[in-house]
Amino acid sequence: MENKLCPLEKAVNTISGKWKIPIIWQIHEGKKRPSEFLRGIQQVDRRVLSQQLNEMVADGLLTKKSFHELPPRVEYELTDRGRQLVEILWKLNDWGKLLLASV
Amino acid sequence: MENKLCPLEKAVNTISGKWKIPIIWQIHEGKKRPSEFLRGIQQVDRRVLSQQLNEMVADGLLTKKSFHELPPRVEYELTDRGRQLVEILWKLNDWGKLLLASV
Repeated sequence: MENKLCPLEKAVNTISGKWKIPIIWQIHEGKKRPSEFLRGIQQVDRRVLSQQLNEMVADGLLTKKSFHELPPRVEYELTDRGRQLVEILWKLNDWGKLLLASV
Repeated sequence: MENKLCPLEKAVNTISGKWKIPIIWQIHEGKKRPSEFLRGIQQVDRRVLSQQLNEMVADGLLTKKSFHELPPRVEYELTDRGRQLVEILWKLNDWGKLLLASV
């Protein structure tokens, strides 16, 4: 059982950080820049946002591109692994609809 | 965005309670009785376990059957909705394997 649970727990831990799912969703919808994420996710502050973004880059969900411009520009994109996660999250979302419908 | 996130957040909240995923897995593997879950999940205590089981019954993931025997016997089973969740968790588990492989 441990062998089967371990990857699943890793997966759940990886996505359960505060705002990670909303961030993934924003990027999935075409947003790229931290300022766009801040506008799209009302309650998050800038420091927490960059912490979460750094973790997601470290986990291989996102890539970060820095453009050497003035003012400096930073963009995030989903990796293949991040896109695979989006597919699974769609299924979880559909499942969540069933839960909400029955409350 | 709110409309899309809401079912997903509900789904993630529903499965992120402590020990819920291990409990689902145990039942998926054919275990039914609280005493079996206690043996299968080393660190959980009986009180926390029944709290989690009650929440999962309330959320429609499990059904509880009480047998009027002596000593009293209680068994839990996955509902259809619980089984749909297991399918999604398998996919998350596969995705988690990719994460672990790259650490």
